[in-house]
Amino acid sequence: MIVVKVGGGEGVDTESVVVDVAELVKQGRQVVLVHGGSHETNVISEKLGHPPRFVTSVSGHSSRYTDRETLEIFVMVTAGKINKLIVERLQQLGVNAVGLSGIDGRLLEGKRKAFLRIKEGGKRKILRGEYSGVIEKVNAGLLTMLLDAGYMPVIAPQAISYESETLNVDGDRAAGAIAAALNADTLVILTNVPGLLRDVEDESSLITHISQSQAEVYLDRYAKGRMKRKILGAVEALLGGVSQVILADGRVDHPVQSALAGNGTVVE
Amino acid sequence: MIVVKVGGGEGVDTESVVVDVAELVKQGRQVVLVHGGSHETNVISEKLGHPPRFVTSVSGHSSRYTDRETLEIFVMVTAGKINKLIVERLQQLGVNAVGLSGIDGRLLEGKRKAFLRIKEGGKRKILRGEYSGVIEKVNAGLLTMLLDAGYMPVIAPQAISYESETLNVDGDRAAGAIAAALNADTLVILTNVPGLLRDVEDESSLITHISQSQAEVYLDRYAKGRMKRKILGAVEALLGGVSQVILADGRVDHPVQSALAGNGTVVE
Repeated sequence: MIVVKVGGGEGVDTESVVVDVAELVKQGRQVVLVHGGSHETNVISEKLGHPPRFVTSVSGHSSRYTDRETLEIFVMVTAGKINKLIVERLQQLGVNAVGLSGIDGRLLEGKRKAFLRIKEGGKRKILRGEYSGVIEKVNAGLLTMLLDAGYMPVIAPQAISYESETLNVDGDRAAGAIAAALNADTLVILTNVPGLLRDVEDESSLITHISQSQAEVYLDRYAKGRMKRKILGAVEALLGGVSQVILADGRVDHPVQSALAGNGTVVE
Repeated sequence: MIVVKVGGGEGVDTESVVVDVAELVKQGRQVVLVHGGSHETNVISEKLGHPPRFVTSVSGHSSRYTDRETLEIFVMVTAGKINKLIVERLQQLGVNAVGLSGIDGRLLEGKRKAFLRIKEGGKRKILRGEYSGVIEKVNAGLLTMLLDAGYMPVIAPQAISYESETLNVDGDRAAGAIAAALNADTLVILTNVPGLLRDVEDESSLITHISQSQAEVYLDRYAKGRMKRKILGAVEALLGGVSQVILADGRVDHPVQSALAGNGTVVE
């Protein structure tokens, strides 16, 4: 059992990932694919006249402000466009995929973060009306039922709150939670760099191996921006019982099989 | 077991339908909800700079030309926006809904119509690049698996072709095919009129009852525009073993329970 996360950023070649996943399924592996979609959501949000708004948190990180309208666009694009294009392509490759959002069957459930603490013009502010959250429960039964019946789940990064509001969630951490809940052997997180780098400017500075006990040290020392969340997803998966997490390059041929062969940053 | 179709046109109150369906599920009925989304798709297509194109078929009917770009917008809006808003609302009402497009798990499969025969400027033309089709197979196993596990399926009107291309399909006929495949007792098709009318201008001219053997006569004589497809969906459901089909008003309170009480045009 493998969980694969393919990002929504530019540069990652979703086609290669999907072709590669189809080969693994035909070799008899059970695979769950989790995808993102932030880049495409930004493009369509602009066209629909509701451009994305990025804010700076009090801790200095840039993050997306997900108001209800942004959330609806996010769901439409990820669960409607990206998810179904992947399902269609997998069907063409002979894999009987079923696309779900985390809200379907309460697949991913968690706590809503209803406001953001931000810095704006030097002042601290509370920004309300946020619809994002952190996953606390996974409906593994729904996934195993589908897998056992021969379907391959393809999952868009939403969760449902305990009050049944749709939430935007981080795709890497969603993949981590799913891998843990399914007791997956391996979680592969594909990105547009070769893995965790000592120097983000130098792709040859790849860190090839991290033990679970060192993960937090590496997280603090080397992970920048979105890589932080990938390492967090990795740590959560390992704590949940996944044997290994591989952060690998999504821009190469056979990106998943390449990762499984050990190319990338192996965390275990 | 009831299959309910709620349209994508203006005027139908999806909120009432969803609330009503949730009550039926709590009473222990198994329900499958099929929805449309053509109106919302038209609105978003306009905003995205790819307005819908309507053509006149050689038989004189107006129909939508679904090129690949239109198809992708259609899927995005129906399977991504409308489907997930319904799933979220059902979850709020305590119903564990799972939203699917007809391409998921090859739920709805059929033959692609790759071109349209149209009339334009007095001339007959062939318009290629069409992505629509007619459903020939339903994966009832996937639906019964979900229903038996306590999930309520909510289905967006796409099908997958034998060559695994996504197709736009008519929602009423999709509901008919699903009702037949599941051996549903009743198919309720909600619309923005009280049912089949003798005179489309006069809502009091409701035809309250049609026997299956008369259906084609009524189809030819009274059904206009989109009502033709609803009657076709009804006939296909009855031929497939559904006991009764009710064409009813989606604009009233408790529209589904009202239909089940016999309000509307009962075809049996």
